[in-house]
Amino acid sequence: MPSEFDLIRRFFIRPTQHTLLGAGDDAALIAPTPGCELAISTDLLVEGTHFLGDTAPFDLGWKTLAVNVSDMAAMGATPRWATLAAALPAPTLDWLDAFSRGFFACAEAFNVDLIGGDTTRGPRTFCVTIMGEVPRGQALLRSGAQAGDSIWVSGTPGRAALGLAHLQGRIALTEPHLGQCLAALHRPQPRVALGLALRGLATAAIDVSDGLLADLSHILTASSCAAELHIPHLPPAGLARDGYLSGGDDYELIFTLPAEHRAAMATLAVELDLPLTCIGVITPAKPDAPGTFALHDDQGSPITPTRHGFDHFL
Amino acid sequence: MPSEFDLIRRFFIRPTQHTLLGAGDDAALIAPTPGCELAISTDLLVEGTHFLGDTAPFDLGWKTLAVNVSDMAAMGATPRWATLAAALPAPTLDWLDAFSRGFFACAEAFNVDLIGGDTTRGPRTFCVTIMGEVPRGQALLRSGAQAGDSIWVSGTPGRAALGLAHLQGRIALTEPHLGQCLAALHRPQPRVALGLALRGLATAAIDVSDGLLADLSHILTASSCAAELHIPHLPPAGLARDGYLSGGDDYELIFTLPAEHRAAMATLAVELDLPLTCIGVITPAKPDAPGTFALHDDQGSPITPTRHGFDHFL
Repeated sequence: MPSEFDLIRRFFIRPTQHTLLGAGDDAALIAPTPGCELAISTDLLVEGTHFLGDTAPFDLGWKTLAVNVSDMAAMGATPRWATLAAALPAPTLDWLDAFSRGFFACAEAFNVDLIGGDTTRGPRTFCVTIMGEVPRGQALLRSGAQAGDSIWVSGTPGRAALGLAHLQGRIALTEPHLGQCLAALHRPQPRVALGLALRGLATAAIDVSDGLLADLSHILTASSCAAELHIPHLPPAGLARDGYLSGGDDYELIFTLPAEHRAAMATLAVELDLPLTCIGVITPAKPDAPGTFALHDDQGSPITPTRHGFDHFL
Repeated sequence: MPSEFDLIRRFFIRPTQHTLLGAGDDAALIAPTPGCELAISTDLLVEGTHFLGDTAPFDLGWKTLAVNVSDMAAMGATPRWATLAAALPAPTLDWLDAFSRGFFACAEAFNVDLIGGDTTRGPRTFCVTIMGEVPRGQALLRSGAQAGDSIWVSGTPGRAALGLAHLQGRIALTEPHLGQCLAALHRPQPRVALGLALRGLATAAIDVSDGLLADLSHILTASSCAAELHIPHLPPAGLARDGYLSGGDDYELIFTLPAEHRAAMATLAVELDLPLTCIGVITPAKPDAPGTFALHDDQGSPITPTRHGFDHFL
């Protein structure tokens, strides 16, 4: 049986593409691109809180990196480098092999170099720190939305939450919907191409990790404004609607657009092969309730969401 | 009782000194200094493996950052930014307050901005990723040692291990030695000023986290060479010698110097108020045993160390 150090080297050291010095010294070395700012985000995933213990290790490896790549997408940054720290309770060779293949499948899909890490025995926990680059001053923040901007969301929020509800026996999905929802849950696709395309167009952006309404609220609060939402084809009241409005773990992007860029979205949706849906408009903040929104159905009747955010992804 | 989110904001959001956008968006934004490379390192600390559950939270906060700052010192990099991810089991206000004060005491001492993080419930675990800057091509690697270079160590290795042995009842230290050893264990002082001073002088460097001989071996392996060690004033055989040679958690620097820079060390030791001790010389690798060293006492008799690395710091 090889030592744990050998296992790490075997499964987690791969050639890097744009890194001066990768894992193996006291630190990695990178050369930031002149004229760019560096976007940095970190996520901690703990078994039992962020993932089920029986999650397939390939999926877990993919998702561990994907949720961080999604933060780069939401900033309009190009993902470039990541570190991975892992606590593991006596992993098997098969488990490590599958986890690392999932992690690197995501790394290769988004051109991310794994440049360092740390491993130890302990309750299964993963911490990824990701770094990306964005030309100076062009990052998409949460704080730039303006009254009059339209509000957009990519893809179909709620699928990950419905996939989880299916696995938990709370609903019974059928194909092809089942496959779509499980794919959304297990292999989220960070919207990097969309984030890059929105540079210079969107006034604010965030990724949907806590739920559509909860994450939109973060934009409203950071931008000191409110919103009127009219969501086309919103599912009828029930689990599907709750998932759409409040399901976490989707990693779609919510973004706001000034009027002059609205027309560009139809072309962009075709180019990216990704639905882009206008779900409302930014309004001036109400002095007594900043960061709030009003939501209406197709008939104009107000909707009161039953919850503002699914529990994480358990 | 404030929410966990409010607690984080209260204890872990402080003004930054050299950061474009700190915590609170999908990612932080920094502007790397033109002409510099970025050094990046990450460490995962798990209760029961890397620290005792009853460690004073101020000390734990200090050490969580300090061990990462030490990696910057070992690269000759100026520490600049860090992220902190923490899993915590229902922390009390007092605990969080003391931990954050210890963390920021270290951050302020070494001019590090905390730029982001993540928190969740779970078994007590901390993951810090640190970023520092070093002028292009000047980083101190493990791989540059050359036959004929002298080998140096800062400070007094072994104190942290002896402090731990005292706490575990395996030895009984007395003052002032006890205080020195507990300080080394609980408030390690990363040798940043030394690392910066060694740019352009040292051919290789590493920090002592696993033990003097174990970490020296990393230099020898990375540099494809061997070493002859003659350690002045090495303690007699016993726990003190084992601690000096193999105690981890000291965060002193081991470095190698070409002959022409040897004379600079006396002045540097005075300037930094830090002992710098020559402990041997780099020799050509033996073809059948690269990365090995021979160790002799003051009388020239060979010493066989009893162990090559203390267990971490438990």
